[in-house]
Amino acid sequence: MQIGLLGYGVVGAGVDHLAKELDGLDVRKVLCLNLADVTGGRGVTDIAEIVDDPEIDTVVEAMGGLHPAWEFASSALRAGKNYITANKALVAAYLPELLELAQANGAALRCTAAVGGGIPWLINLERCRRVDTVRRIWGVFNGTTNFILDAMHRQGADYAEALATAQKLGYAEADPSADIDGDDVRRKLVISVAAAFGALVREQDVPMFGIRTITARDVANFRALGKTCKLIASAEAGKTVSASVEPVLYSAGTPESAIPENFNLVSFESTNAGHQSYYGQGAGRYPTAYNMVQDCLDVRSGTRRFYTKDFVRAEVDNTNVFRHYYVRTNAEDAWLDSVAAAKGDGFAVTAAISQAKFHEWAAVQRQSDPTLFFAALQ
Amino acid sequence: MQIGLLGYGVVGAGVDHLAKELDGLDVRKVLCLNLADVTGGRGVTDIAEIVDDPEIDTVVEAMGGLHPAWEFASSALRAGKNYITANKALVAAYLPELLELAQANGAALRCTAAVGGGIPWLINLERCRRVDTVRRIWGVFNGTTNFILDAMHRQGADYAEALATAQKLGYAEADPSADIDGDDVRRKLVISVAAAFGALVREQDVPMFGIRTITARDVANFRALGKTCKLIASAEAGKTVSASVEPVLYSAGTPESAIPENFNLVSFESTNAGHQSYYGQGAGRYPTAYNMVQDCLDVRSGTRRFYTKDFVRAEVDNTNVFRHYYVRTNAEDAWLDSVAAAKGDGFAVTAAISQAKFHEWAAVQRQSDPTLFFAALQ
Repeated sequence: MQIGLLGYGVVGAGVDHLAKELDGLDVRKVLCLNLADVTGGRGVTDIAEIVDDPEIDTVVEAMGGLHPAWEFASSALRAGKNYITANKALVAAYLPELLELAQANGAALRCTAAVGGGIPWLINLERCRRVDTVRRIWGVFNGTTNFILDAMHRQGADYAEALATAQKLGYAEADPSADIDGDDVRRKLVISVAAAFGALVREQDVPMFGIRTITARDVANFRALGKTCKLIASAEAGKTVSASVEPVLYSAGTPESAIPENFNLVSFESTNAGHQSYYGQGAGRYPTAYNMVQDCLDVRSGTRRFYTKDFVRAEVDNTNVFRHYYVRTNAEDAWLDSVAAAKGDGFAVTAAISQAKFHEWAAVQRQSDPTLFFAALQ
Repeated sequence: MQIGLLGYGVVGAGVDHLAKELDGLDVRKVLCLNLADVTGGRGVTDIAEIVDDPEIDTVVEAMGGLHPAWEFASSALRAGKNYITANKALVAAYLPELLELAQANGAALRCTAAVGGGIPWLINLERCRRVDTVRRIWGVFNGTTNFILDAMHRQGADYAEALATAQKLGYAEADPSADIDGDDVRRKLVISVAAAFGALVREQDVPMFGIRTITARDVANFRALGKTCKLIASAEAGKTVSASVEPVLYSAGTPESAIPENFNLVSFESTNAGHQSYYGQGAGRYPTAYNMVQDCLDVRSGTRRFYTKDFVRAEVDNTNVFRHYYVRTNAEDAWLDSVAAAKGDGFAVTAAISQAKFHEWAAVQRQSDPTLFFAALQ
């Protein structure tokens, strides 16, 4: 396999390193910012040198971002090259277009590392669907927010302190918004929904609430309730597809409640295999590079399809998902009062209410109270 | 794929049911005790009707036990038929012989369901080794003992009561010895060691201690220490291979401590992917049948190899594995006194001592005190 590698940052250099140790994976050219970073004179600065190279059969992208990744991906696929990427923003936004290009040009499209980093999540979903029907997926899909929540729960850190530690350790970026507000998780969920159910939902249709406004006081309240807070993406397929990203409170003694540091735990439930979970490093140089190299081997051994064959566009409908919510807001609200089943010091716990209705309310309430935080009870 | 199915009990009937729903998996004949159990006149009572049938390319065995499974497996493989089995006793005892027969006759040998039931453990170990080095494997490999320990911890059941419930629910057999004494786990470990490290260890060389003698009082002691007891198989590969089956105490908040009911959690650590765990149903009709059917699909798409290519016979050496042990014995012992770091009411906690030495001592101590129980501290 003759590879053109796009990007030579943390993950790109990791892919190069792992490929060197394997027979027949030859990183022939590397698109990079600084030619001196890449050994063997393989560095190039013009994408055309890769896309127009007839010796290169596979493009491995480790850049991230929508642009120019989309332009690179589409020109590589048009040139008939397989495209392997860890870029969840790209795949979540352009999955139908990428698949169409791949199919039209007989190329493979794989993105195992885009969801779960080093965890073989998409590949095992794909295997499951060969013989089974996946009904539900859920889990901790983001290591940054898990690290922050874990530090708040186990070490009693406050939010700012936990975020600062995550940034110092390289788990959170200088602008952590995509992680803490849930965008990263939502992209992974959109890709997982496609692989699990063959359903294409739009990123912006999935209601999302992150952990930006969680406080040490909230965590103390959760502890008093015997609960641990995790940022959870979940989706279920029935007559319609429900999907959401929101903080969820798990009881002590559940696997989700025990996920430490920056680990991920992602789960599915299918008719025959039942409930299965996958745990591991959801990010990092070698875990991510590991799954990208696994994709290379799968493509080399003949895999052409995406993780599932058939796609149907689906609306997200959370009307019939019912949850109890912990809600902390400092702005009075009559509707919240009307659905509150219990009140604590500064917070309410609602009766079981429609997730669709609740997220609609929260989006409005957030305007009057930017400190609003909530979490669903598992 | 034309299948000859051996056994039509819980799992065999499950395989038949799942295969019916898939194109191209044709269960042509079924070896069974009662011809009336099997539809379509497919039942046979003589193995020769399957082994000598030139139309059958794959034998799927769901019988269990060493004999006549070994005789059936060897005659099927000699006839050039692929052999897919969930029989851990067979594979742990005859792996070298089975592999030799498979290779000599160009047949496939797969046993994904033999370890972890419906969890894709062996297949993911196999994938990992394509690009990575597995250093360590460990986990909860047995749902029966996990159910018993979980009931003792969470519901405060005593051992006899928890075992009786497990038997009533069909999780434990009338004679539960193979589960509670660790034999089942040890067989799974031997197969996993082969797949993970390419090392063939002998079942009887792996020291093993089960949960037969655990009491509600022990569990109360663990709780007071903030620990949860699990029956753990583990192995590590370095210059030598260490391997053991023993109760282990995990701190609250670890994934292992949170495994409920009859679930399994099996883990590996590899150089690049890091720590990965797989969680799910380790037994049961459809989970087990699910992985057997997955094996069929893998074989149909060309898989011939076992989970790893090369095997080296290896001795088990636990001399350099050091653990602290919780020990409860009612027979005085000078050596135990000499290594005790702390004493509680009726139990001792040792300093870090060699696992090899400790299991040797425990085997002898058990003669004078059959109520002996111990557990390693994680």
